[in-house]
Amino acid sequence: MLQETIVISRAGGPEVLVPQQRPVPAPGPDEVLIRVRWAGINRHDCGQRSRGPSTHESDVPGLEVAGHVEAVGANVRGLAPGAEVCALVDGGGYAQYATAHRALVLPRPDTLTLQEAACFPEAAFTVWYNFFSVAAMQPGERVLIHGGTSGIGVFAIQLLRALGHSVYATSGSEEKAAFARSLGAARVFNYKTEAFAEVMAREGLAADVILDMSGGRHTEQNLAALAYGGRIVHLSGGSGAPLQASLRAIMQKEARITGSLMRPLPLDRKTRVAEALRSAVWPLLGTAIRPVIHRTYPLAQAAQAHRDMETGDHIGKLLLDVQPS
Amino acid sequence: MLQETIVISRAGGPEVLVPQQRPVPAPGPDEVLIRVRWAGINRHDCGQRSRGPSTHESDVPGLEVAGHVEAVGANVRGLAPGAEVCALVDGGGYAQYATAHRALVLPRPDTLTLQEAACFPEAAFTVWYNFFSVAAMQPGERVLIHGGTSGIGVFAIQLLRALGHSVYATSGSEEKAAFARSLGAARVFNYKTEAFAEVMAREGLAADVILDMSGGRHTEQNLAALAYGGRIVHLSGGSGAPLQASLRAIMQKEARITGSLMRPLPLDRKTRVAEALRSAVWPLLGTAIRPVIHRTYPLAQAAQAHRDMETGDHIGKLLLDVQPS
Repeated sequence: MLQETIVISRAGGPEVLVPQQRPVPAPGPDEVLIRVRWAGINRHDCGQRSRGPSTHESDVPGLEVAGHVEAVGANVRGLAPGAEVCALVDGGGYAQYATAHRALVLPRPDTLTLQEAACFPEAAFTVWYNFFSVAAMQPGERVLIHGGTSGIGVFAIQLLRALGHSVYATSGSEEKAAFARSLGAARVFNYKTEAFAEVMAREGLAADVILDMSGGRHTEQNLAALAYGGRIVHLSGGSGAPLQASLRAIMQKEARITGSLMRPLPLDRKTRVAEALRSAVWPLLGTAIRPVIHRTYPLAQAAQAHRDMETGDHIGKLLLDVQPS
Repeated sequence: MLQETIVISRAGGPEVLVPQQRPVPAPGPDEVLIRVRWAGINRHDCGQRSRGPSTHESDVPGLEVAGHVEAVGANVRGLAPGAEVCALVDGGGYAQYATAHRALVLPRPDTLTLQEAACFPEAAFTVWYNFFSVAAMQPGERVLIHGGTSGIGVFAIQLLRALGHSVYATSGSEEKAAFARSLGAARVFNYKTEAFAEVMAREGLAADVILDMSGGRHTEQNLAALAYGGRIVHLSGGSGAPLQASLRAIMQKEARITGSLMRPLPLDRKTRVAEALRSAVWPLLGTAIRPVIHRTYPLAQAAQAHRDMETGDHIGKLLLDVQPS
């Protein structure tokens, strides 16, 4: 059986994303085949597209989907065909059908539509893992989130606020700053017009954990805004330019500069994150944590979604609307 | 009562260290006054001397001493005049008398002379804190120590070997490499002639924790030699040049780049280290961990000791021989 997919035809701009018919995959013994209804767009997908097809990953981008269970492998329990789920997938999301490891499939919360549930897998896995495993965040610690209105930022502000942390954020416009405040950020700095570290110092604020998607652009200010023993967690390698940091500042604050990549994370770690999400985060979705959808695009217009992602004017998620065949 | 001391007369080379008579300090309520017999030289002292006198620290350098208790403050229990001790001090070691906080005074082990005991305080506090607190080292983890024949390196190799860790080291000459091997390092690389990360990769070796006193000179190789989830712990700010590191390499390995400064560390942290040293390290001194003394100098020749420290040809400790008046 054939399905519609979007493939990365070669390295390049959004135009290299082209529709292609592919066979519907069969789920492996530990896999769930999902009939995709909505697929999330992530910045990671744009990077993968720019680098072009590789031998070690699917040429169909897409790390998160929501839809109906179509079929399950022999080792899968508790998930029957027809169940409404969302999942973290290892590529392959821009398609009518996607396979996910059974451990990374989560139920659609009663409080959310399938469209809304598609907003969360990648952000939830990434934010939970980086704050609670990589940064080992403790109760009461204060966080600074760069890019407060990205898909990651919108989720992180709401989650950490709900868990009782003081949340500061940066964003690149007044409109975005106002939105980040509406999500619960105590202070939001416009990084284009304010030196956030100076303002924080003036106000007696510091961050125990800084989540940085800027690719090292804010390192000097990050170290200045960091509390003693604080962690700076990088989610983006940026342009590939090296991070430059004052060793003395690192030593004086016992700072930890770190980061992670979600996609190649070993399955056992992803599984532990999924378990934490199920118990600690899924009950908050639709109540303390609301979905923020910027725009949806038909699957065939994935290229336009990439253009909008790279322009960076969005607030919240971009989703692909995957119609059944 | 007056005593002989060495003071940093101004910023500069070893020649700015000059003898000066100063009053013997009176111990505060929580302090121990030690009649110094031996004082350790540390690279930190050279940096302090180069920067010159400052308003927030003693102009008498010296972070570790061994000698006899001369007097104790009102809150000090269990330390009587005449007891043989060594101690971590907050400057003031290059003198006939020095005060130490009671929590940072440790007994001379039965297995060591006072001269030998003077080799350990700064190295022991620094190594223990950085490996077991900053890097949170776990049983079985492998370590790479740059500068394997420095005072810190000589101690670290022996301690970590004694605790069951695989220890790799670098040093700058064949003679030093051989010495580091004799202390128990499984592999020692000459960083002047070998690309240690390439050799380690070829031999299937990786380090979970890297202790770096090079001021960031080895960052690229450090990241290449690091195991997934590894930590690079910096003890020296080097020339002040910024650390340059590949963000992508950090993220791929979930590396943590960190460091610390022992001298300004809050007292409660130093106290916890002292407690750990007393129970876990002091019983190893003189047996699994032997003192390595390069040379001793009369107090009045502290400048020569600094010259030798900065030349870097030594293996092990440089000590000041402080004769009673």
